[in-house]
Amino acid sequence: MTSLDDLPLRANLRGQIPYGAPQLHVPVALNVNENTHPIPPAVASDIAAALADAILTVNRYPDREFSQLRDDLAGYLGHGLTRDNIWAANGSNEVLQQVLQAFGGPGRSLLGFAPTYSMYSILASGTDTRWIPGDRDADYELSPETAARWVTESAPDIVFLCSPNNPTGTPLSLETIAAVYDATPGIVVVDEAYAEFSPDGTDSALTLLPGRERLLVSRTMSKAFAFAGVRLGYLAADPAVTDALRLVRLPYHLSALTQAAAVAALAHTGEMLAMVDDIRVQRDRLVTELRALGFSPLRSGSNFVLFGGVADPRATFEALLADGILIRDVGIPGHLRVSAGTEAETTAFLDAIARLAPIAE
Amino acid sequence: MTSLDDLPLRANLRGQIPYGAPQLHVPVALNVNENTHPIPPAVASDIAAALADAILTVNRYPDREFSQLRDDLAGYLGHGLTRDNIWAANGSNEVLQQVLQAFGGPGRSLLGFAPTYSMYSILASGTDTRWIPGDRDADYELSPETAARWVTESAPDIVFLCSPNNPTGTPLSLETIAAVYDATPGIVVVDEAYAEFSPDGTDSALTLLPGRERLLVSRTMSKAFAFAGVRLGYLAADPAVTDALRLVRLPYHLSALTQAAAVAALAHTGEMLAMVDDIRVQRDRLVTELRALGFSPLRSGSNFVLFGGVADPRATFEALLADGILIRDVGIPGHLRVSAGTEAETTAFLDAIARLAPIAE
Repeated sequence: MTSLDDLPLRANLRGQIPYGAPQLHVPVALNVNENTHPIPPAVASDIAAALADAILTVNRYPDREFSQLRDDLAGYLGHGLTRDNIWAANGSNEVLQQVLQAFGGPGRSLLGFAPTYSMYSILASGTDTRWIPGDRDADYELSPETAARWVTESAPDIVFLCSPNNPTGTPLSLETIAAVYDATPGIVVVDEAYAEFSPDGTDSALTLLPGRERLLVSRTMSKAFAFAGVRLGYLAADPAVTDALRLVRLPYHLSALTQAAAVAALAHTGEMLAMVDDIRVQRDRLVTELRALGFSPLRSGSNFVLFGGVADPRATFEALLADGILIRDVGIPGHLRVSAGTEAETTAFLDAIARLAPIAE
Repeated sequence: MTSLDDLPLRANLRGQIPYGAPQLHVPVALNVNENTHPIPPAVASDIAAALADAILTVNRYPDREFSQLRDDLAGYLGHGLTRDNIWAANGSNEVLQQVLQAFGGPGRSLLGFAPTYSMYSILASGTDTRWIPGDRDADYELSPETAARWVTESAPDIVFLCSPNNPTGTPLSLETIAAVYDATPGIVVVDEAYAEFSPDGTDSALTLLPGRERLLVSRTMSKAFAFAGVRLGYLAADPAVTDALRLVRLPYHLSALTQAAAVAALAHTGEMLAMVDDIRVQRDRLVTELRALGFSPLRSGSNFVLFGGVADPRATFEALLADGILIRDVGIPGHLRVSAGTEAETTAFLDAIARLAPIAE
């Protein structure tokens, strides 16, 4: 039988394994920060109608410029953004890959602040961009001074800032983002995949866009819009940035089905985002109750909580899995990550981990 | 206003313009080799039902392994292929990009035989793979000797063979494919995007797969399945090849909607492919009638015809466009390319170009 080693694979891929959490089917899946609330039936019905209409013309290529979708995403984001500020792709992973294809590559480098979204270093490797893992402050916070010092000392071509950060959940201040921008002549991407779950009154990095033509703010419909299965990531930036991304996108990269589904969902923003408040309540409940159980949850502006004080993360992970509850061991010693689910799912998790106590040291 | 030149764009992108044919709305669009036949209503209805079902669970990530789809694609291709032989992505452009990400890259090279599908050199540039444009024989044919000589002399890491070739339409013999494979220790991709339009009795490169672990045969649902808007390209190869592609694919790259639509369509292969015979009739009619008008059409195994003998391709293109008929100037002197449409569309094109005669030299 032929093995990978028999093929002329690129050197930087040898010995690697594919990225991805285990795909297990369990009653309570809180491992990949999905929105565990299905789309409301009335909205699902409208989306289905849009898809039924779209399928009638899929013998033709889709709108390569996805103009209607860009209009609607701009309208959703507000902040005076228009179609020309918007870009989208099949998930924010593809958006970020396109950013690296346009501005990274051989001889160029990408700075991120570990621990952070693990796809960043994988995307860097896949585009032959050198990955620079910067450090964070205590409790995985990131101050303007620490961030700017890393930028100045490592002189990256691109900086990825995850806000709130995955897998730690920690929010990022606009002061840190501005400090990073001021410290580099390069591209700064703020990955706001979880921005909708931020506490009330939190300003988005979108407020920083005016006058900063090298600042990109990426978003996704996967989380707040419960659209992980549709794969729709997007970003807002200066129109020159979207022109740059046109040079590296594959033609017709967004299917007619993706465009139709996303446009239909954006017409129901209120109903789609109604779930976000419920999830924030469960997120806050996770922090409170995990602390009461003796764990050390980090502050979170996201739809998940990273908690420390776990004596044996692998054993706790396995014990929960035996109870039909799947969470995530993200590889941080003494820590586990859990997504905020529905009230019932969150209760199931909290009850189960309470039964496992005193696993905390 | 910020321009592209103000941004830290990669050097190899400076001065480029985005790939893509003009997106014009005209009564008769025969410019991008689409299947101009809409999906049969009964099939569209089944696909819509599958999509309506899929939307109910899109709050969850899609099956990262798209197992059902791989099963069904293997069943469609036959030749003893199974799930483990199959890979898929958002259009064959993405499949080919993943092949270059796995086996190409800095220091590596890709050989193709020009004129050929223009995305090949763009994909090479986008992955920092050196593009080697080989030559063809007379009438854009490619003999085993010519192809093998180019392979031996240029020693590429990867060879892309387009069969039938786009934009010339010319079929490629299995002898040429085998000769290329034998002449290289590298990866050989046969791009069979238009294979279903080949004359009866034509063997696919799929027949060459057994014992050739470096041979990849790519296909698309865009053409024969009238699915250009859905974006579903795929390939068949040794399971080790699909393992290699897992290392470079973005996780969850195929949406739940794409998977559901493609699976539903593959359950109606007979009805979906019924249009192929009609298109082949119109393709053959184009060759016959263009020749009768004094043009020089090349032999075609595809759903389009490249024809020479056009005194001023730009003028003919514009004159047809003024008549509401859009075809393609692919940049080959004295030639234009036209897709085979429905009988009515093909008649409209032939009538219009007959009125323009004697534009042929």
